[in-house]
Order: sequence, then C-alpha cells, then structure tokens
Amino acid sequence: MSPFNRRDFLKTSTAAVAAPTLSLAQSPSAHAQAPQPATPNTSPHGVTHRLARYVVQARYEDLPVPVRHEGTRTLLNWVGVAVGGSHHETIGCAVSALAPFSGPGQASLLGRHERFDIMNAAFVNGVSSHVFDYDDTHLKTIIHPAGPVVSAILALSEYHPVSGKDFLNALVLGVETSCRIGNAVYPNHYDIGWHITGTTGPFGAAAAAGKLLGLSEQQMVWALGLAASQPVGLRESFGSMTKSFNPGRAASNGLFAALLAAKNFTSSDGMIEAKRGWANTISTKQDYREITEGLGQRYEAALNTYKPFACGIVIHPAIDAAIQLRNEYHLAPDQIVSIDLRANPLVLELTGKKTPTTGLEGKFSVYHAVAVALVEGAAGEKQFSDRAVQDPRVVALRQKVHVQVDPAVLPEQVDMLLVLADGRKLYRHIAHAVGSLEVPMSDRQLESKFMDLAEGILPPDQIQRLMNTCWNVADLPDAAAIAQAAVPAKT
Amino acid sequence: MSPFNRRDFLKTSTAAVAAPTLSLAQSPSAHAQAPQPATPNTSPHGVTHRLARYVVQARYEDLPVPVRHEGTRTLLNWVGVAVGGSHHETIGCAVSALAPFSGPGQASLLGRHERFDIMNAAFVNGVSSHVFDYDDTHLKTIIHPAGPVVSAILALSEYHPVSGKDFLNALVLGVETSCRIGNAVYPNHYDIGWHITGTTGPFGAAAAAGKLLGLSEQQMVWALGLAASQPVGLRESFGSMTKSFNPGRAASNGLFAALLAAKNFTSSDGMIEAKRGWANTISTKQDYREITEGLGQRYEAALNTYKPFACGIVIHPAIDAAIQLRNEYHLAPDQIVSIDLRANPLVLELTGKKTPTTGLEGKFSVYHAVAVALVEGAAGEKQFSDRAVQDPRVVALRQKVHVQVDPAVLPEQVDMLLVLADGRKLYRHIAHAVGSLEVPMSDRQLESKFMDLAEGILPPDQIQRLMNTCWNVADLPDAAAIAQAAVPAKT
Repeated sequence: MSPFNRRDFLKTSTAAVAAPTLSLAQSPSAHAQAPQPATPNTSPHGVTHRLARYVVQARYEDLPVPVRHEGTRTLLNWVGVAVGGSHHETIGCAVSALAPFSGPGQASLLGRHERFDIMNAAFVNGVSSHVFDYDDTHLKTIIHPAGPVVSAILALSEYHPVSGKDFLNALVLGVETSCRIGNAVYPNHYDIGWHITGTTGPFGAAAAAGKLLGLSEQQMVWALGLAASQPVGLRESFGSMTKSFNPGRAASNGLFAALLAAKNFTSSDGMIEAKRGWANTISTKQDYREITEGLGQRYEAALNTYKPFACGIVIHPAIDAAIQLRNEYHLAPDQIVSIDLRANPLVLELTGKKTPTTGLEGKFSVYHAVAVALVEGAAGEKQFSDRAVQDPRVVALRQKVHVQVDPAVLPEQVDMLLVLADGRKLYRHIAHAVGSLEVPMSDRQLESKFMDLAEGILPPDQIQRLMNTCWNVADLPDAAAIAQAAVPAKT
Repeated sequence: MSPFNRRDFLKTSTAAVAAPTLSLAQSPSAHAQAPQPATPNTSPHGVTHRLARYVVQARYEDLPVPVRHEGTRTLLNWVGVAVGGSHHETIGCAVSALAPFSGPGQASLLGRHERFDIMNAAFVNGVSSHVFDYDDTHLKTIIHPAGPVVSAILALSEYHPVSGKDFLNALVLGVETSCRIGNAVYPNHYDIGWHITGTTGPFGAAAAAGKLLGLSEQQMVWALGLAASQPVGLRESFGSMTKSFNPGRAASNGLFAALLAAKNFTSSDGMIEAKRGWANTISTKQDYREITEGLGQRYEAALNTYKPFACGIVIHPAIDAAIQLRNEYHLAPDQIVSIDLRANPLVLELTGKKTPTTGLEGKFSVYHAVAVALVEGAAGEKQFSDRAVQDPRVVALRQKVHVQVDPAVLPEQVDMLLVLADGRKLYRHIAHAVGSLEVPMSDRQLESKFMDLAEGILPPDQIQRLMNTCWNVADLPDAAAIAQAAVPAKT
C-alpha cells in the first residue's frame, strides 16, 4: 500500500479557497516553512507570471515526501501503459507516417526499436500511453496528466541530460500545472466539447520541459503563452485514433513551446488570464485561484489515480467485488451458480451489453467484466481481448450475472451476492473500488498492472529492471536511463 | 490591372444562401455545367464529408480562369512576403530553436540557405510570411489564408513531386476550405479571442496537402478531423512573436494531419459539425451553409486581397491619396505647405501617434504614413523603418499634417487637401483604397511590392526569375521549382 494517506491532500485541496497564497517575494522553500496568512486573490492579474515564477523556483528538495512518491507512481504507471500500447495499430500508423520526416534519433520510442527526434518521440510515446485509455486520471478534472508531461520530458531527457531528482521535480510541476489550469476551467470547458487532457496538456509539458531547460521566469511566461496558443482535442474524436492523438500532440506542442521560449521567441505576458487569453477564450468559467493559490502548499499532483482495470470506471466496483470474492474463497468458475449485482443505473446505461463478441465490446459489458474477473482474477487489457470475450467459461458465467439497478447505490458502490453450488452465499459491499482516491492502487498492484502490460513486449527480467529504474528515479544520475530501459533488449 | 472583375464574385458570395448546393451525386465539373436548383441546407449533417468530397473531386480544369489567376496572385504575394520576412529576428529565434531537431533537409526555407524537413520548413515559412503583417487578407473574415495553406504545400511539393496545375488547384482548395469554415463561425469566433487565421488554417493546410497526397474521401475526412483537433492562436498574443507563430503552426499542424490520415490514422466523421465537434466547441455561431453551399460555384479564394502598404488598413486611403497626388503632380517635399485630411474617427483612434521614433511606432502614426508616402512615393516595410521615421524630410512634413475626423467619412474613405508653396491647392477623394476588393492591387503593383520585399535578400535577376516562376505556376512540370527559386543563389 501507499505509505501515506492521500485524503490529507484531498482535504487541503477542497479547502483551496482558504489556503494561504504564495508570497511572490519569497522562494517556495522559504514559503513552505512559513506560510503567509490567507489573502484570497480573485484578480486575474499576473496569473501567468505567478505560475511561471513558481515553476522556475520550485526545487526537488521542496517537494513533500508523499508528493515525491506519488510522482514516482505516476511515472511507473505511465511507463507501463506506454510500453503496453506501443504495438497498437494506432502507433503503427503514426510511426509509418512520421518516420520519413523525423530528425536525428535522439529519443526512444518506448517498447520499440525506432528512434525519433525528441518532438516526434514525445508525440508517439504520448499516443502509446493513451491507446488503451488505461493511464492515470486526475479525478477532479478527468485530466490524464502524465501523457503530455512525461512524454515531453522523457524524450527531452535523452537529449538534454538531467538528474533523476530534477526529472521527478519537473514531472510533478508539469502535472501540477496542467491540473491547476484544468481546475480553473472545469467543468464548463470540458462540457462544451474540449478534451481537457489535450488542452491543458501543452501547459504541463511546456512547464516541465521548460523547467529542465532552465528557462528564466520571462521565458517560462513565453513558453506558457506558446502552450496556450496550441490547445489540442475535441471530445467528438472519442472512439477514434484521434483520442490518443491528443495527449501525444499536447506533449509535442508543449515541448515545442519550451524550446522556442528558450531561444527568446516571445509571447504575451498574460496569455492564461488576459481578456483575449486562454481561459476567457476557451471556457465560460475562470477560477484563477485554482492556479495561483497554495502553490508549493497543496499538490494536485498528489491526487493522481491509476486504473486497475482496462475499462470504464463505472464497472470498477463490480470487478473489484468479483476479484475479492474469487481470491478470498479460491473460487473456480463451475462452483458459481448465480451472481447478483445491485448497482447504480449508470452501470447498465454505459455497460449493459449482454452478448459482446469482441474485446472492445467487452469493455461495455458489465456481464463480461464480472465473469472474466471471476474466471481470471483480473481485468486488464488481456481480459478485454477477443480471446477472453469468446472463452466458453467466461461466456457461461456471464449468463449467470443479474444486475438490479438502484439510484440509491452511488456510482462508486456496488453490492454483489454469489450463490455457490454447495449452497453457500457470499456477499461483498464495495464503498470505493480499488484505484479510487480512497482506496488507491498499492505499489504492488501498480507493479502487477505494469507486468501485465509489458509482457510480450519486454523480456521478464527487463520488465523488472525497468520497474526498478522507475521506482529509483530520484537516485538516477541521468534520467535518460528510464527511456533507454524501456526499449526491448536486442536478442 | 487584373483581367477580370472581382465584384462578380462578391455578388455571388453575398447571395450565398440562395446559391445552388452541390449535388453529391455529381462530379464538381458536371455540376459546374448544370447547376442544381437551390435547396438550402441548414442541417449540419455530413458537413465534413461534403467538404471532403468536394476537395477530393475538384480538378484544376474545373477552376474558372479568374479564380486560377487570383490563386496565382495569392501565390506571388505570399512568396514575396515570406522572402521579405525571412531574416526577421523572429525567424532567427525559430530556426536556431528547431535546427537541432529537424529531419532531413527536404524543403527550403524561403530567402535562406538552411533546409528542414517539410513540417519544420512549413512552420518557418509560415512565420516568415506573417512577421510584417503584410500578407493577404480575406476581408469577410480577416483570415490571412495563404500562410497556413501555401507554407504547407510549398514544403510538401519539394518532397512529393506535383505539377504546377495540381499545386495551384490545391492552393485554391485550401484557401477555399479555410475561408468557408471561417465564414461559418465569423465574427463570434474571432470576437471571443481566437486568431481565426490560426484556427481555420489547419483545415486549409490539411485539405491542400491532402489533395496533393491523393487522399480518399474518408482519409480527407480524417485529415479535417485531425486539423479540427489542432486550432492555433489567441488574439492576446498580438504584438508578440506568437502572432506570426500562429499561421506557421497552423501550416505544420495541417500538414501533420494530412500525413497521418494518408496512413489511415482515423478521426471521427463529423468533426466540423458534430455536437462536440469544432464549430460548436469553438464558436457560438455556426452557419454550415457557408461551408457546403455553392462548392465549385462561388469561390472565397477569388475574394483574397493584398496589402499595398505595410501598416494597418485604416490608413491605407490616406496613403493612397498621398501617393496619387505625389506621382501625378511630381511633388517634392519642400513644395508642400500643408496637408489636411478628413477621415473616419478610427484613423486617430488607431494611428494617432504624432511623434513616432521607431519604425514600429510609425505604423501607428497617420502623420508619419502620409509624410513618408509623399516623400518616397511608397509605404512598404522600408517606409516603416527607424531610418524612415527619423528622416528629417519626413519629420518636417509630418508636422504639416492635420487630421479632422468625421463619422460621416466611412473607414474606407478619405479626403486630402494639399496646399503648395506656389499657392496651388490639390484635392483628392478616395472612395476605396488600392488593395481593397473594389480597387485590387494590379499585377504590376504586386510585382513592385514583391521586388521591394525581396531586395537585399535575393539578387535582382533572381527576383525577376522567382516572380516569373510564380506567374507561370500552372505551366510548371514540377512545383518544387517555386521554393527552389526562392533560395538565395550562392555567389
């Protein structure tokens, strides 16, 4: 399990309005030791500059230990999904399209042998990490923050050497930047149609890459301004390859912004908050306190979550119940006579498909998801394959699943009752599924997910080495070791 | 002068609602010969597909001769401004930032010796062409359409050989695509803060590049969907390098979209018109008839205009009057006693600076603009240099300029009265300045502008050859000749 209680971060986050503001005259580290009195700032003046100053000044040493650990978990989870997605059809299309135009082979494509220039590599790795929709989630905004941020700095780290501590600090600052800007405009911005991962991602990628490039405050302001000029993604693309395009392009856009700013390519000073700037143009809601308040005090990056199951979050409670009962009672499929679920109505609305025939359809079938979880004790990508959906044991079991919907059951809850052939009845209530903020995936569970995703792409001993490299990021003398460890060893 | 009357195109354009719609069952050429009865379509259904089908099917042979000529003028004007801007500080920043990451030297940077991969070259050339704010304008939307479109296909043509006819056809189709989509959302979309050149540019660039790549209708739909996912630019950046960044990035985004779509990288089918698609997400106005009606019948590309003077359009009438009087009466500065202007109030609001000290400030001074036009008979980039603004003859004359504002004078009008030392009074009324749709720049005037911009960057004989190459685009066996002719000959 994670060594800290993240509810503490939730509490400080929901109390954001009353949280102390960052005193601009002090360095973040001094501020961390002596918080100033609360002085709520609702004026948009200087938002971009204040955020830039924080990013430029923030040091690894200032990060609370739990935030460092959550950043490390974000890295590990992201590397796992990027390696896992690296041979998806979408990546084949992208690599074949871009190969003729890529610059020098400066950076690795995770899970593959090609090398691209850092901007094209950031793009491809960002796409890989989202093709299974299995990456991390900042639940307050449903931003998937790692894709844009880590894709950008992982590629950059292979060209511009940085220490593991600096890398991890930049990762946290990038995630922080995307999620805080997302908070300022969510939900209106998402509701109207923007893919918020792709629109906030360039800011996070620019901040993180700019941090590693050593930008001055003014250059960081320009980098954020160039990022503001390049939002990516519309929700209409969901269901097509363009959905995973979005975090990839957000990564390369943010990196592009930081590289230009490093050469003094100018932008305006208030591109986030000005009248004709990003927030006013792209959203009907602007709460700038979410961006500027409590910088260095509360961390959105500490609120990142990871999916344990490769499907929509609405059926995670049912899958969790099934796996818990299976493992605790060592159940075999033929012992089970019936499976009764009491669940929120969204479960049948979104995943009510009774007879899926493909892996993708299986993601929209609570019947399949529960059955395969009982048979295989997991619900990763492999459990949503054509093979799994057509497995006779799974098909037989899914016909025994009955779902009763009840609005009194919250979406994060489920009740499951199994009746066994020997007459026993097994009951399980789930208040929060694993992977939620309340019941985060344990480090061990993240490793299992990682191994499952990387299997068949990297040899088993390399998978273990790669995970160790991620866990030890803060001790790496050169962060390029991460990307290099994610390229399949030549046999 | 231009060999056709563009007012004809204006008329059909303003009558767009009643214009015949494109029958999808017919090829555009058949349609051109036998227009269908008007059947207004206000349903958004199939907008992206209908536009894609038009772009895929439209042939050079279908373009009316005046549209071909206007496309050629668009090309010539664009090449001139791109060469002219190629050594601006902004380009130095961009080239030094991107050089380490560029792919093979597939494409020329106009006016320079470096070669970049086609996407980076499209970006840089697009920036070059906008640094002076001196490129073309589609007045109905204030889109600068050539930047994104021509940058993309000029670079592509050096990698993927195409005939001059195909190149010109793609140019027209790209401009048509950007401007029609712009019409659908203007003015709301611009008013809220988007730089409409950068948000519609990816569509035009994707359409034009996709046309040259031979995309199928489905692939073109995907290319437009990927373009929709990559809008660029906020008005807040005006006044910084990020303004000219926008058409450059729009060019590379559109080219990126077309190249991915060519490898079957999918997007959704209705990314322009769907509920969570581009137009609904990015604008509060959506008039889809502007996109789909009269395709192949009326041409927004025929409505392109070109700036004769390197400053805001509001003082073009005054400059025009000054140059006309100077040339007709062979005036020398010391002959002039006083200059009285009667002008729209916007003139002093936007350009009322009395004592500019730099070239940039000179662009915001009607006093300088009129004085320098009387002294030098021109108002190009050179007339808005520090040298020109500090020229004692110009300074002396600008002090003799008096401006009377009157709301009864329309923005496109001006009255000028010169009093000469010999007592003569010279009067000129301007109803529409040169460069407007009503008084388009002549081909000869476009050449003068081109020569003025390219002087000092290309040798005189090369400037002439490059202009000839542009004029003869439709006869080029290989359109790559255009970009190649715009690289300074090595001495």
